[in-house]
Amino acid sequence: MAESWVNSAERIGADLHLDLAAHAGAGGRRAALARALREAVRAGRLAPGTRLPPYRSLAADLGVARNTVADAYAELVAEGWLTARQGSGTRVAERTRKAERTRVAERTRPARRTEHPSRGAPARARGPRHDLRQGTPDASAFPRPAWLASYRRALHRAPNDVFGPGDPAGRIELREALTEYLARARGVRTRPDRIVICSGFAHALRLLFGQDRGAPGGVLRGPLAVEAYGLGFHRELLAAAGVRTVPLPLDEDGARVDLLARERAVLLTPAHQFPTGGPLHAERRAAVTDWARARGAVVLEDDYDGEFRYDRKPVGALQGLDPEHVVLVGSVSKSLSPAVRLGWMVLPERLVGDVLAAKGEREAWASVLDQLSLADLIASGAYDRHVRRMRQRYRSRRDRLVAALAAHAPHVEVTGVAAGLHAVLRLPPGTERSTVKAAAWQGVALDGLAAFRHPAVAEAAMPARDGIVVGYATPPEHAYESALEALCGVLPPGDGG
Amino acid sequence: MAESWVNSAERIGADLHLDLAAHAGAGGRRAALARALREAVRAGRLAPGTRLPPYRSLAADLGVARNTVADAYAELVAEGWLTARQGSGTRVAERTRKAERTRVAERTRPARRTEHPSRGAPARARGPRHDLRQGTPDASAFPRPAWLASYRRALHRAPNDVFGPGDPAGRIELREALTEYLARARGVRTRPDRIVICSGFAHALRLLFGQDRGAPGGVLRGPLAVEAYGLGFHRELLAAAGVRTVPLPLDEDGARVDLLARERAVLLTPAHQFPTGGPLHAERRAAVTDWARARGAVVLEDDYDGEFRYDRKPVGALQGLDPEHVVLVGSVSKSLSPAVRLGWMVLPERLVGDVLAAKGEREAWASVLDQLSLADLIASGAYDRHVRRMRQRYRSRRDRLVAALAAHAPHVEVTGVAAGLHAVLRLPPGTERSTVKAAAWQGVALDGLAAFRHPAVAEAAMPARDGIVVGYATPPEHAYESALEALCGVLPPGDGG
Repeated sequence: MAESWVNSAERIGADLHLDLAAHAGAGGRRAALARALREAVRAGRLAPGTRLPPYRSLAADLGVARNTVADAYAELVAEGWLTARQGSGTRVAERTRKAERTRVAERTRPARRTEHPSRGAPARARGPRHDLRQGTPDASAFPRPAWLASYRRALHRAPNDVFGPGDPAGRIELREALTEYLARARGVRTRPDRIVICSGFAHALRLLFGQDRGAPGGVLRGPLAVEAYGLGFHRELLAAAGVRTVPLPLDEDGARVDLLARERAVLLTPAHQFPTGGPLHAERRAAVTDWARARGAVVLEDDYDGEFRYDRKPVGALQGLDPEHVVLVGSVSKSLSPAVRLGWMVLPERLVGDVLAAKGEREAWASVLDQLSLADLIASGAYDRHVRRMRQRYRSRRDRLVAALAAHAPHVEVTGVAAGLHAVLRLPPGTERSTVKAAAWQGVALDGLAAFRHPAVAEAAMPARDGIVVGYATPPEHAYESALEALCGVLPPGDGG
Repeated sequence: MAESWVNSAERIGADLHLDLAAHAGAGGRRAALARALREAVRAGRLAPGTRLPPYRSLAADLGVARNTVADAYAELVAEGWLTARQGSGTRVAERTRKAERTRVAERTRPARRTEHPSRGAPARARGPRHDLRQGTPDASAFPRPAWLASYRRALHRAPNDVFGPGDPAGRIELREALTEYLARARGVRTRPDRIVICSGFAHALRLLFGQDRGAPGGVLRGPLAVEAYGLGFHRELLAAAGVRTVPLPLDEDGARVDLLARERAVLLTPAHQFPTGGPLHAERRAAVTDWARARGAVVLEDDYDGEFRYDRKPVGALQGLDPEHVVLVGSVSKSLSPAVRLGWMVLPERLVGDVLAAKGEREAWASVLDQLSLADLIASGAYDRHVRRMRQRYRSRRDRLVAALAAHAPHVEVTGVAAGLHAVLRLPPGTERSTVKAAAWQGVALDGLAAFRHPAVAEAAMPARDGIVVGYATPPEHAYESALEALCGVLPPGDGG
C-alpha cells in the first residue's frame, strides 16, 4: 500500500502542483484543497484510477491538519470526483469519455420544472449514460405497428365533426373505451359521462385546483392532505395554485389516513405508494373513503402505474369503493409513452359540471386524433396485449435488479418492488447525497429519497431515511445490464466492506 | 290584409287562449302578453307562418294599450320567435323540426369558456343547423390521406427518444420545418432555437403572462394594450392571470398604435384585424415596432389566419420587421383543424429561456407524434398544397357570400373580406341583437360585433357599430348554399323594404 502510494505520489509530484495559495478563498484551507483537487481532476492532471495519498502524508506535504485533508477528500467523494472504497483507498473516479460529456450535459439539463436548459448548448440533446430516474417507460418498446394500425382505422372512421371544435369532455369513443377498460382492469365503476379526458396528471391537478392563486376558479379547495413522500412537481404545482398541502406520514401500511382531520381533500397513490412502494392497507382504504363520506371530502387517487403489478393479485382502484367520493386520475404516460399526452379523470357525478367549466370550451389540449387512436387501441385489445408484454418485461427487469443487488450490494435493502417501474434502495445513514452525486459523476441519473420528501414533514412524525429511487424501465433493453453494473458501482460499501 | 288576419284570428280563436291573467308576474301586462305569446309559439299552438293580429286589434281584444302589444311583439321579434317584415306584418317565425331541436341544444351548449353544457343532455351532441360562427375551418376538408401518410412516415422514422420525456421546446424536426416555412410563407425571420411549440394561442398567452394571479411567474407583464375588438376568450384568460388590458381604438388603418404609452406589451392581429378585418397600415407597422424598441416593450402578433389572403399580395408577418421585439404566435387551428392541437411561438432571443422556464419540463402538452407528423407534412410540401386548395375554396365561399348579400340584402355592407375565414356585416343601428337572436331561432349560429368589443372602450373613443361576424369556412361544402340562404333570411330589412 505504501508502495502504491509512492508510485502515485511520484506521478503527482511530477505532474501536479497542489498550490493551495492559488486556490485560496472562501472556506479556508479545506476549501482551497478541495478546489485544487477538483481542478486537477477536471483538467485531467489527476488521471482516473489514480490512488490519492493517505490523509497524513498529504497533510504533512502541504503543512495542513490531517482532518483538513480528510474533509476535502470526503467532499470530493460526495461530489463524485473521487471514490472511497474499503480496502482500496481513495482514488480518482474511473470515468469514460462519454460520462465526461454527459456530466457537462447534466449541468445544463433541467432537474426541476422551474429550471431550464441553456439554449443552444450542444450538450442539450444528450442524456445521462444510464437513465435510472423513475417516471418513464422503456421508450424503445412503444408499440408502433399497433398504434399506427389504430391511428389509421380511427382516421378512416372519424366523422367530420372530429375536425371541428371538440367536446371539452373528450371524444365519446375514448370515454366509452375507458369505461369498459377501467372497470375490467382496475375495478373502476363509472360511466362515459363521468370521464373527462385530459393530458395527464398535472393537467388534472390544474383543472381540479385552479390555476389562479386566490381566484375562485378551482373545483376543489385546500387544504389538501398529501403523502409525506411524493412528486415535488405536484407540490410545486399546487403551491402555485395557492393550495396548502398537509403531509401525512407513511408507515408500513401506507399513508396515515387516521390523521386526516379538517382537510377538504386527500391525494393518495393507493395501489403503489409513490415513491416508497407499498399499497395502502385495506383497512385504511375503507377508512379514507369513510372519512371522505363523513366530511363531504374528496379522495384524489393517482393511479399512475396500476397496471404494473407483479407478484400478487392487482390492487383494484380505490375508486371502486366509493365512486361518489373518489376522483381517479390515470394516463398512458407509463403504459404507452409520455409522448402520447393523454390522461383521464373519473369523477363523482357532482364534480363533472365544475370540471368541464374549469376546462372550458377552448381548453381541449389533448390531440383529438390521438384520443380516437387510443380508443381503438383499447377496444381492439391491442392495449391489453401491450400492457401484458410490458408487465413481463418490467418484471424481468425488476428480478434482474434484485438479483444484481443481492450479488453485489447485499447490504442494500430493496423495497417497493411488488409493482411499478421503480424500486427504492435503502442506504446506510448519511450516504444518500454522496451516492446520488457519485452516480451523476458516473453518468448514472437517479434521484435520492430526499427529493420526494414533503418539506413540512417533521422528523419526529416520520424520520427521514437514506435511499435512492431507481427507475428500471427507462433504459433500452440492450443497455440494461450495463446500467445495473454502473448502479452497483456507485452504491456505498456495506459495513462488512 | 284584413282578410288574412281574420283567418288567423279564427284559428287563434279556436285553438289559442291568450290568458294574460295566467301569465301575470313581473313586468306588468307587456311581460304577461310576451310570456303568453312565447308559450303559445313554443307549444306549437301558434303555428310557424301564422300572421299575428295588428296591434290595435289584439289590444282591443285584450283590453290593453296598443303600445303594450307593440312592445311585446318587438320583444319576441328580437328573441327570434316572431318575424316582422315590411309588407308582410308580424308572423310566427318559420322553423324546421331540426331548428327546433337545435334550439334546445343551443341552450345547453357552451357559449363562453366559463359556461358548460349540462351533462347527459341528449341535445349536447347536436350543433346548430348552420354554423356561421367564426373560428373553425371546414371540418370536411381535413387532408386525411396526406396527414396519414405523414404520420406513418414520421412514426416509421422516429428515433426511440421520441417516446421518452420530450424537449419542452418541442421536437426539433418541427421547429426546423417551421423556420423554413414561416420564412417563405410569412416573411418570418427566425431560427429553430427561437421557436417553442405549444398547443395554440391560448397556451401561448398562458406561457407569456403566467397562470397565477399575482405570482411572479409570467414572462411578460401588463398592462397589455389590446385592440378594441378582439376575442373575449383572450381577455378572460388575461384577466384570470391578473393582466390589465388597455383597449386601443381602431380606425380604417387598424389599431391606433399612436396611443400606446406606458404599456409593456401590445397584442395585435396585424395581417387581418380580428374580427373587423383590415390589415394594419404600413406606417403603423413601423410605428409599433419603433415604440417597442424605444421602450423595451414587446409586440405580440397573433398571426391567426395569415395564410388566407385573397385579393392582394399577402401581408407579411410584422415579426419580420423586428424579430427581437415581436413575438409571433401561429397555429394549425385554421389551416388544418383545431383537432390537431399544435401552435408555435417565434420568440426574441432574450425571451426563449424564460418561456421554456414557464413551460417547464413536464408541461409538454402537444402530442409529440402530431408534431413529427406536421413536420413531415410541411417538409413534404403537402401542407402548402392543402393551404392553396383551402385558399381557393374559401375565396369561392367569400365570393358567394358577397354575391348573395348583393342580391338579397344590398343594404348590408360587407367588410373585412380581403382575407381570412370570416366577414363582418354592418347592420342598421339597433338591429344587431335582434338579428343574432332571430338567427339563433332559425338555427343559424353567429355572433354579433358586441361580443368582441372590449368592455372598457369608451363610446367617445370609438363608437359601437351594429354588425355580425359571419364565419364562412365552417359549413360543409354541400350545406353552404342553404346556410347563405338562411343567413339572408334573418338579416334586418333595408330602409327601402
